[in-house]
Amino acid sequence: MKRRNFLSLFLFLFLFLSTSITNALNIDSGAAKNYVFLFIGDGMSVVQVNASEYYLTSLYNKCALGEANKNNCYPFPGDKYDTSAQAKLPRISFTQYPYTGIATTYGTNSFTPDSADTGTALATGKKTKSGTVSMDPTGKTIYTTIAEVLKSKGMNVGIVSSVSIDHATPAVFYSHSPSRNNYYDIAKQIPTSGFDYFAGGGFVQPTGSKKDQKNIVDIIKESGMKYVNSRADFETLPNAPGQRVVATNPSAGLDSSQALYYDLDRRYVNKPNDHITLAEYTKKGIDLLYDPKGSNGFFMMVESGKIDWANHANDAASSIADVIAFDEAIKTAYDFYKQHPNETIIIVTGDHECGGMTIGFAGTKYSTNFANLSSQKMSYIEFGKIVSSYKNASPPANIADDMKRMISDTFGLDYSKLTDFQKAQLEDAYDRSMAGKAIVGSEQDYLLYGGYDALTVTCTHILNEISGIAWTSYSHTGVPVPVYAVGKESNKFTGQMDNTDIPKKLSEITGYSLPK
Amino acid sequence: MKRRNFLSLFLFLFLFLSTSITNALNIDSGAAKNYVFLFIGDGMSVVQVNASEYYLTSLYNKCALGEANKNNCYPFPGDKYDTSAQAKLPRISFTQYPYTGIATTYGTNSFTPDSADTGTALATGKKTKSGTVSMDPTGKTIYTTIAEVLKSKGMNVGIVSSVSIDHATPAVFYSHSPSRNNYYDIAKQIPTSGFDYFAGGGFVQPTGSKKDQKNIVDIIKESGMKYVNSRADFETLPNAPGQRVVATNPSAGLDSSQALYYDLDRRYVNKPNDHITLAEYTKKGIDLLYDPKGSNGFFMMVESGKIDWANHANDAASSIADVIAFDEAIKTAYDFYKQHPNETIIIVTGDHECGGMTIGFAGTKYSTNFANLSSQKMSYIEFGKIVSSYKNASPPANIADDMKRMISDTFGLDYSKLTDFQKAQLEDAYDRSMAGKAIVGSEQDYLLYGGYDALTVTCTHILNEISGIAWTSYSHTGVPVPVYAVGKESNKFTGQMDNTDIPKKLSEITGYSLPK
Repeated sequence: MKRRNFLSLFLFLFLFLSTSITNALNIDSGAAKNYVFLFIGDGMSVVQVNASEYYLTSLYNKCALGEANKNNCYPFPGDKYDTSAQAKLPRISFTQYPYTGIATTYGTNSFTPDSADTGTALATGKKTKSGTVSMDPTGKTIYTTIAEVLKSKGMNVGIVSSVSIDHATPAVFYSHSPSRNNYYDIAKQIPTSGFDYFAGGGFVQPTGSKKDQKNIVDIIKESGMKYVNSRADFETLPNAPGQRVVATNPSAGLDSSQALYYDLDRRYVNKPNDHITLAEYTKKGIDLLYDPKGSNGFFMMVESGKIDWANHANDAASSIADVIAFDEAIKTAYDFYKQHPNETIIIVTGDHECGGMTIGFAGTKYSTNFANLSSQKMSYIEFGKIVSSYKNASPPANIADDMKRMISDTFGLDYSKLTDFQKAQLEDAYDRSMAGKAIVGSEQDYLLYGGYDALTVTCTHILNEISGIAWTSYSHTGVPVPVYAVGKESNKFTGQMDNTDIPKKLSEITGYSLPK
Repeated sequence: MKRRNFLSLFLFLFLFLSTSITNALNIDSGAAKNYVFLFIGDGMSVVQVNASEYYLTSLYNKCALGEANKNNCYPFPGDKYDTSAQAKLPRISFTQYPYTGIATTYGTNSFTPDSADTGTALATGKKTKSGTVSMDPTGKTIYTTIAEVLKSKGMNVGIVSSVSIDHATPAVFYSHSPSRNNYYDIAKQIPTSGFDYFAGGGFVQPTGSKKDQKNIVDIIKESGMKYVNSRADFETLPNAPGQRVVATNPSAGLDSSQALYYDLDRRYVNKPNDHITLAEYTKKGIDLLYDPKGSNGFFMMVESGKIDWANHANDAASSIADVIAFDEAIKTAYDFYKQHPNETIIIVTGDHECGGMTIGFAGTKYSTNFANLSSQKMSYIEFGKIVSSYKNASPPANIADDMKRMISDTFGLDYSKLTDFQKAQLEDAYDRSMAGKAIVGSEQDYLLYGGYDALTVTCTHILNEISGIAWTSYSHTGVPVPVYAVGKESNKFTGQMDNTDIPKKLSEITGYSLPK
C-alpha cells in the first residue's frame, strides 16, 4: 500500500513537474525558438494548385498507361476499385499539410486587390489600398511588419523572391512606401532594415527612376552586407549564421523585369550556371539563418512571383511549371521542419488569385486532358519574341506553313487537327500580331487578347482550352486563396479567415506582438 | 507528508477513472448520441459562397452609405482604419465555422464529374463513374451508404432536397441504380429504404418512364409512410418522432422539373402557400427526427440542388439567391447545434463546382459592383418564358423599345448606357432567340449561349460582367470544393481531402463503420 502511494506520488509529481519545467523553459530559457516560413505564391489560389496536381497526375497517367490510353480521361489509374492507390500518385507537397484555411483578399478600395495591399495585409495584419507598401491608405502612417517585429526580438530574417527584390511582395516585409513604383526608395531600405538575407531577382531601378542616383549595389556593399551575383560566389558563401547577404541571379539569369526566368524558360534557355532557382535560394536561406546557438530562431518569406504573371497572360503551362518549382522550394522548408518539428511552422498561401483560372472549359464540356499542356516548350514571353522577329521579316498575309510549324513545335497544336473556329481564331490573331501595332482597339480586342501579343495569347488559350483550363480575366480576381499549414500551432490556420489574420496568428505563435 | 500522498493518489485515480468511465459510457450506454447534418450545395464551390458573401456586403455597403456612394467600390465600410468593424458585416453563416477543408471531386472517368458520382463518393466513400447511383462503375455491385449504415444502427434518417427527391444527390443516399435516369426505380426505393423523412421537390416520373406503372405516391402511402403535399398538411404534422413522412411542395410550388422554384422566383411568383422552403423542410426534419428517448440520434442530408442549375445557365443572381436560401436552412441546424453542441456535427460542402464562376471579369479588370446584381428580378427561366411569348407574337427584326424596357426592368440594364459591344451582343442574341429554333449551330454559338435562350443568357452575362462575375463553362468543372465544419470532432474536416473521405470521417465520428 505504501509502495503504491509512493508510485502514485511519483507519477503525479512527474506529470506536474515535467509540464512546469517545459512551460518554464519556453518562457525563460530561450528554448522555444521559432522557425517561421511564409511562402506566398503570387496570384496562386486553389485552382492553380490543384491544376498543377492534376497536371502531374495526368502525366503520370499517360506514362503509366502508355500512349494507347493517352485519351483515356480516367485520372487516377489503379484506383478504379481501390482508392488507396491514390496515395502513390504525384502530389504538390503542401496539399498534404494537415491544416487548410480559406483567406479573403480584398483591399480597402477593391474586392480585386493588388500585390501591394494584399502583401501589406500578410506582412502587417492591416488593410490598405492598392499600390501601397506597408503604410495606411493615405501613405502617411507606417505599418510595422511581422518581419520587423521578429527581427527586433532577436530572430534572423530572410526575404526571398523569384522576382526583383524591390517588387511589391518582398517589399512589404522590409520597407514602407506610399507607392510600389518607388523601386529605388524601396531598395534603399534593404540595408537599413537590418534583415539578414535577401535573395532572388535583381533591382528594377538600381540607380533610381532618372538613373542619377548612387547604385543600390554600392549602397548595399557599403552598409557591410555581402552582395553576390554569380553561382560560384553564391555556392561558396559559408553555410553559417552571422553574415548579412544579398544574393541575386547574374544578369544572364534575369529577364527584362529583373526577375528569374519562368521555370519553363529556365529549362528552355538552359543556362544552369546563370539560373539559381527559388529552391536553391530557400535552402541557402535556411543555412544562413539557422543559428542554434546565437539567434532566437528565424523568419523567412519566400515568394514565387511569376505564377501571377503567367496567369495575367493566361498561360497555364507556365503558371503550373512555376507552381511546381515553388513546391521544390517549399520542400526544402519541409525537410527542415522534419528536423525541428516542435519549433517550425510552415505557411503556404497566395496573395490573391489572378486570371480567373478554372478547371473546365465551355467548349470541352466534361472532358479534360491536362497532359496536353506538357507539349508547351516555352512561356508566352519567349514565343512572343519569335512572333516579333517573324513580324519584322515581311510576313505573308495569312498564316503560312512555317508559322504553323512553329505553333505546333511550341504548343503541340497540330494545325490540321484544329476546328474551323480555332483556325479562324488563329488567323484573326495572326492579323492583329502582324499589323505591328499594340492592341489598343475595341472592347472585344481586349477580351480576346488583353493587351498581349494576339497570336501568342490565342495559342495559349487554345492549348489551355483543349486541355480543360479556361480563364475569365487578364487581371487579379477576388477569388479567395487557400492557406496550407504544417508544424507548430498550425491548427490555427483553418476556417475562413482574412489575409490580415495570417500575421496575427504568426504573432500569437511566436509570442511577439504586432502593434495594434 | 502522508496527507500529500493521499491527495496525489486521489488526484491520480480521479483522472484515471474519470477517463475510463467516459470511455465506457461512450461505448456501452448509448449516451453518445450523434446528430449528423450533411449539407450539400450542388455546384457550389468557394466562389459561389464568397460571391454570395460579397453580394451581401455590397448591398449593406450600398444601404449603409446611401446612393451617393453607390459607385464607391470600397467593400467593407467602417474598416478603412479599423478592420474589427468587419465583424458587423453580413455573412454567410457557415463561412464562420471553425474548420475548413478542401475536397477534390473527380470521378473514375473524369476530372469534371457529375452529381451522381460525386454524390456516391459523399454517400459511400467510394468512387464511381458519372451517372451511377451508389454502385460500382459497372453498375453491378451495390455500395452501402453512410445513411444506410447509420439507420441500421438505430439512428433516424432524413433526406431533403430542393430538387426532386428522385434526383441524383438525394438518390445516392437511399437508393442504388446503374443510372441516375432510372427515376422511377430510384423513387421506389424510398419506402424500402426504411428512412424516416424525405422532403422537398416531387417525382420526375411518378408512373415510370412510359407512364404505365403504379403511382409512386400510392406505393409510398401503402408502405405506411405519411405523404403530405400542402402547406396546411405539412404544418400540422405533429412535431414528434416515430412517423415516417414524405413531404413535397404542392404542384403549384414546383417547377417543370418537379423542383422548388429558384428562391429569386419564389419571391417573384409570390405564392407563399405553395412554396415551402428548404429551411422549413430542414426545421421540420429536426422536429421529426429528434428523439431524445427513443432513437440513437439522427442523420440528415440536405441538398440545395439549383445552385448548380443557375450556374449551368451562368445566372449569378439566381445562384447567389439560392446560396443565401441554403444558408437559411443551414442556420436551423446551427440553432439545434447550439442546444446539443457535444453530440452535433454539421458539415457544409459542395458536390462539385459548376460554371467556372470567378469574382472578376476581363472587361471590368479591377472593378466589381456586386450590388448591381440586386437589379435582377427573376431567374433566366422566368425571363426565358417572356422571351418565348414575345417570339410568338411577330417580333420586329431588331430589338425594339418594349424589349429594351423588359431587359431594363428584369436585369437593370439601361440600354442607353451599354457599350456598343454590349449592344451588338444583345442584337446578335436577339436574332438567335427570335429565329425560333434551338441553338445547335457552330462552336462559337455554343460558347456564346451554351444551348440556353440566347437573349436571356446574354442578359445574365452582361449583368454578371458589369457586376464583376464571369464564367468559363456551362458544365461542371474540376475546381475543388470547400468543406465547412462545426461541432463534434469537426477538427477532422481540415486539410485537403478527397470527397470520399467525408463519409469515412462521419463514420469515425459516429463509430459506425462503412463497409470496406
